[in-house]
Amino acid sequence: MLNKSPATASSTELANTIRVLSMDAVQKAVSGHPGMPMGMAEIAVALWTRHLKHNPKNPDWYDRDRFVLSNGHGSMLLYSLLHLTGYDLSMDDIRNFRQLHSKTPGHPEHDVTPGIETTTGPLGQGIANAVGMAVAEKILAATFNKPGHRIVDHNTFAFLGDGCLMEGVSHEACSLAGTLGLGKLIALYDDNGISIDGHVSGWFTDDTPKRFEAYGWQVIRNVDGHDVDAVDAAIAEAKKNTNQPTLICCKTTIGKGSPTYAGDAHCHGNVLGDAEIARVREALGWALPPFEVPANVYETFNAEEVGKEAESAWDEAFAAYEKAYPAEALEFKRRMSGELPADFDAEMGAFIASTEGLTDTIPMRKASQNVLQMLGDELPELVGLSADLAGSCLSIWDKIEPVTAETGGNYIYCGVREFGLGAMMNGIFLHGGFRPFGGGYVVFSDYQRNAIRMAALMKLGVVYALSHDSIAVGEDGPTHQPIEHLGSLRLMPNLDVWRPADAVEAAIAWETALKHTGTPTLMSLSRQVLPPLSRSASQAGAIRRGGYVLAEAEGAPAAVIIATGAETRQALDAREALAKEGIQVRVVSMPSTFVFDSQDTAYKAEVLPAGIPRVSVEAAGTEYWRKYVGLEGGCVGIDTFGESAPPPVLFELFGITAEGVASTVKSVIG
Amino acid sequence: MLNKSPATASSTELANTIRVLSMDAVQKAVSGHPGMPMGMAEIAVALWTRHLKHNPKNPDWYDRDRFVLSNGHGSMLLYSLLHLTGYDLSMDDIRNFRQLHSKTPGHPEHDVTPGIETTTGPLGQGIANAVGMAVAEKILAATFNKPGHRIVDHNTFAFLGDGCLMEGVSHEACSLAGTLGLGKLIALYDDNGISIDGHVSGWFTDDTPKRFEAYGWQVIRNVDGHDVDAVDAAIAEAKKNTNQPTLICCKTTIGKGSPTYAGDAHCHGNVLGDAEIARVREALGWALPPFEVPANVYETFNAEEVGKEAESAWDEAFAAYEKAYPAEALEFKRRMSGELPADFDAEMGAFIASTEGLTDTIPMRKASQNVLQMLGDELPELVGLSADLAGSCLSIWDKIEPVTAETGGNYIYCGVREFGLGAMMNGIFLHGGFRPFGGGYVVFSDYQRNAIRMAALMKLGVVYALSHDSIAVGEDGPTHQPIEHLGSLRLMPNLDVWRPADAVEAAIAWETALKHTGTPTLMSLSRQVLPPLSRSASQAGAIRRGGYVLAEAEGAPAAVIIATGAETRQALDAREALAKEGIQVRVVSMPSTFVFDSQDTAYKAEVLPAGIPRVSVEAAGTEYWRKYVGLEGGCVGIDTFGESAPPPVLFELFGITAEGVASTVKSVIG
Repeated sequence: MLNKSPATASSTELANTIRVLSMDAVQKAVSGHPGMPMGMAEIAVALWTRHLKHNPKNPDWYDRDRFVLSNGHGSMLLYSLLHLTGYDLSMDDIRNFRQLHSKTPGHPEHDVTPGIETTTGPLGQGIANAVGMAVAEKILAATFNKPGHRIVDHNTFAFLGDGCLMEGVSHEACSLAGTLGLGKLIALYDDNGISIDGHVSGWFTDDTPKRFEAYGWQVIRNVDGHDVDAVDAAIAEAKKNTNQPTLICCKTTIGKGSPTYAGDAHCHGNVLGDAEIARVREALGWALPPFEVPANVYETFNAEEVGKEAESAWDEAFAAYEKAYPAEALEFKRRMSGELPADFDAEMGAFIASTEGLTDTIPMRKASQNVLQMLGDELPELVGLSADLAGSCLSIWDKIEPVTAETGGNYIYCGVREFGLGAMMNGIFLHGGFRPFGGGYVVFSDYQRNAIRMAALMKLGVVYALSHDSIAVGEDGPTHQPIEHLGSLRLMPNLDVWRPADAVEAAIAWETALKHTGTPTLMSLSRQVLPPLSRSASQAGAIRRGGYVLAEAEGAPAAVIIATGAETRQALDAREALAKEGIQVRVVSMPSTFVFDSQDTAYKAEVLPAGIPRVSVEAAGTEYWRKYVGLEGGCVGIDTFGESAPPPVLFELFGITAEGVASTVKSVIG
Repeated sequence: MLNKSPATASSTELANTIRVLSMDAVQKAVSGHPGMPMGMAEIAVALWTRHLKHNPKNPDWYDRDRFVLSNGHGSMLLYSLLHLTGYDLSMDDIRNFRQLHSKTPGHPEHDVTPGIETTTGPLGQGIANAVGMAVAEKILAATFNKPGHRIVDHNTFAFLGDGCLMEGVSHEACSLAGTLGLGKLIALYDDNGISIDGHVSGWFTDDTPKRFEAYGWQVIRNVDGHDVDAVDAAIAEAKKNTNQPTLICCKTTIGKGSPTYAGDAHCHGNVLGDAEIARVREALGWALPPFEVPANVYETFNAEEVGKEAESAWDEAFAAYEKAYPAEALEFKRRMSGELPADFDAEMGAFIASTEGLTDTIPMRKASQNVLQMLGDELPELVGLSADLAGSCLSIWDKIEPVTAETGGNYIYCGVREFGLGAMMNGIFLHGGFRPFGGGYVVFSDYQRNAIRMAALMKLGVVYALSHDSIAVGEDGPTHQPIEHLGSLRLMPNLDVWRPADAVEAAIAWETALKHTGTPTLMSLSRQVLPPLSRSASQAGAIRRGGYVLAEAEGAPAAVIIATGAETRQALDAREALAKEGIQVRVVSMPSTFVFDSQDTAYKAEVLPAGIPRVSVEAAGTEYWRKYVGLEGGCVGIDTFGESAPPPVLFELFGITAEGVASTVKSVIG
């Protein structure tokens, strides 16, 4: 693809540039991981100079290949590549490696650096993100490509190391990638035999090629990872197979180029030191001082021209598509821009209004399903992922089309793979064109917790529609009953947790989730049936403020009860019972503390007036609620693990009843 | 092994008894999972009547085989087996399936039912527990067995289904089991092709035998899971191979025996209904009403006599061992009883006293390592597990012996497998004879969160010694900096989280962790160096109360600062600075809120007097601290994600400084 000219640098020069730049940047920061960039330099050269389809001047070009550095600690490899190929990442940025607010943080961060497709570092999740991206490409291609028009046609490449392969999430995602036949996913395995604790022979003896063949992948074995031509040929072979994902197993030496530390775990995460750096320079015959790159290396790496040509060619192809399929072209652009359909607000508003009139007593999982049923028609970018609980969580609607090896669709049966599901959702969202949501049980958010965190950190508008949200799970017992989950998830920065109390709140939870493109939403949905609450129009509107007065006290309130989800009923019943005793209380419904906290001070003070005792009611851990009820308030909830028994027995046992609420109110009003 | 007599029931009768009992119990509870017990009935008969070494009258016999039902939703299979073979589990208990405080909760619970080795239900963790048990057996055998004396010699059997195999934790644990050559681990795979969402062909197409061969397991393929003799023969073959774990792949039909639902996902988690139950009875030729078992079935299943004989034989062998190796025998009994060495208190006390005199400035990971160094000699039951971070977390000491395929030892290099590590720790503790602890980073507790929860639920005294406990991680950036973790872990019932401020607190954290056999402990250890704090003897003693007055105000305090870990310094500095301005404040060190919360009211009120404003100081999320500082108090901490930069820059950026603390104090005293 490159113009050969006298100025062309050799592959060795290209790889050594990455080596030197990486070790020097790590040394300057006195912090970082030189071993991986030095070991994967040739692999990177092969992919980035001979295969990767990208335009450094437009990192957002829709049809670019996606590149994921799953072994994210090797961030200097990626920064080197971005700098050398022409992205908006200067040598000063590289000098600022790992410094505050630089474009070159310790691990690659999606929302910080142009050209970084996903934030990596937590091992195993990058490859799972890549699986998500490849699924997204597959579905999008199936939706938009037409005979003679392939406007969606790109590969997803991932680098990964031993650590990623040991992590369970790599099993979950790669197993599913095989089933789904993701032929455009190509992973390059940095098989250097080293992890932080040393030679992996003591703890990682998998026959990895065999493992991936068992998943249905094409495996290209025994590639010399320091031979650019060999890696190049393997990638070419991988691209030919469009029915299976490919794993290219590259034998490498960590820290290659370092006379002392090559092949040694020491160079994984330690600076080489000035003396060794001098030895590397000598060994490589590298005369230039730190942060200088030979002109012919820049010229050979630079991808601006080929990138521009590639994008121009695509622009032409898209123009032809636009002519032949104007409506689809418009829709494609809308999808990729992440904008909701023009009529979304109207449709959603009409749906919510219709929900307000309902009198059905339904579980929140069903209320959520009713929204999905509407969205299934309205929102083609909606793609559902089920953790083998579609029927149980009702995270499905009647016109879903399962994605299979042969077909696209809008629904991914993920099997019992919660973490993989979460990390794939992140990849699907990052790819663009989709609003993924995942179903499962609240309690098993534990399994996918770090994927939720990565969505929050990356500001991805993914949605978790989780059901079975309290001890109301009942007979399945304490292993299946969330207790600390609600509070602990609310503690996560930039995660919006909704626990709706009826169908209207559930619909607004979905509306909020879809409108928030920079915040993941986690819905905690009841399995048990709940009757609709009665509200005025202004109360219904106030649901969008996260917390609102659901039932006012007759006169000045003696206390404010703050309730969520199913237990709003116990709160309302307690209010009535207390009123009969002459005690007037206000009931606040608080489906989203995240949204409530973002309201102005005046509104918050209006809903929760200072000086009036407060009582929280939620069938879950209570400690979190001290944030709202303070030291003197009361909490109705459960701070032990649950029990296996029919739900009504458990609510009685744990005192989460109208009587329990009423007596707690009395205790705090003294 | 069984006495053949005219009364002997056929294998078919035995299996059908399990089927009928299971479907009837589920029906009576109107809740549960009949499909798995009906599908695995023959496999259970083969294992439990022909191989399993156990004594129903002494479920705690040290040398029993361990049995783990990793697909725990099939709990009625296990309850049936326990009842039928003679455990203290009556037919009334089975009638009470899934009722409050019954011995037969929805999923098997270790601390509730005799004969249940581990609590299962969260998929994949049971098989990982089993890997832990098998490692424990291996290490214990290597330690105590002598030529001619095999007092530790038992198998670990696990049943598992498709769900377990899809979960990532099964990859982590089974991969390591292969590396460690756990020849006494035998897993029986219920290959029924069904999970909750339906036929697994849409989401689980692994060649599972090939996958496990890639892990180094022996795999026995294509066993007819409804042929008791075939399963029996496979188990016999598995037992012969003592160098590799064995996976026996049994083809089965879920819900076998049900004319309508056999082979259908419907019967996974739904009652069959009275009509279908009648049809099953007809199909099986089963005349008895619910909860009646033919006498010959009881007689054939009953394992009391063979169990008693087996245990007696072991008792004799142990008596011979005791004679030949009296010291080892005594130590073995101590180890298995879970009692600490007689001199533990004295040794630990002396160590803590010596720590009080130290003047070194060290990180808490190093303080923890100093304890480990002492414990390495003092506590032979200590077994370490490293998530590939032994050197980084200093969760290692100088005389560790790595467990390998060929040898026992006291240290398990787990590789990058946090969740597997946690679930294995649970299995090791459950096996008996060990106090496992695991090293890793605080932030990746996310990956192992549900294993921590299972330890808390099962009341297992495992220890997590996690380091890199705040934004002080620095340059590695937000993916590696815990924020919400401390608070969210403290919300977990029965988990004791310690965040020590100096070496003395770290030593007492370890002391507490080891003395608490029914509560897991998670230590959050600093990576940065910390100087020792000065304390009186009574203050040092009060560390054991979880929170104590570290620095008293001169006169009546205007405010109380509550600090943990590294930020205790900022609190102390703020106290001094404020004193110069005439503001007197008390500093409370609160290394364990869990222990502090368990103190008597008077002590708590003494440390945190009512009516005096409070300020919390912790380089982590602040919301949790509202529990202690109330609505009016102040919090110094960080409620966003971190940044990649050198640590001092970050503490400045987020205002976690003495100045920041002082100004917050001033703001709350008004």
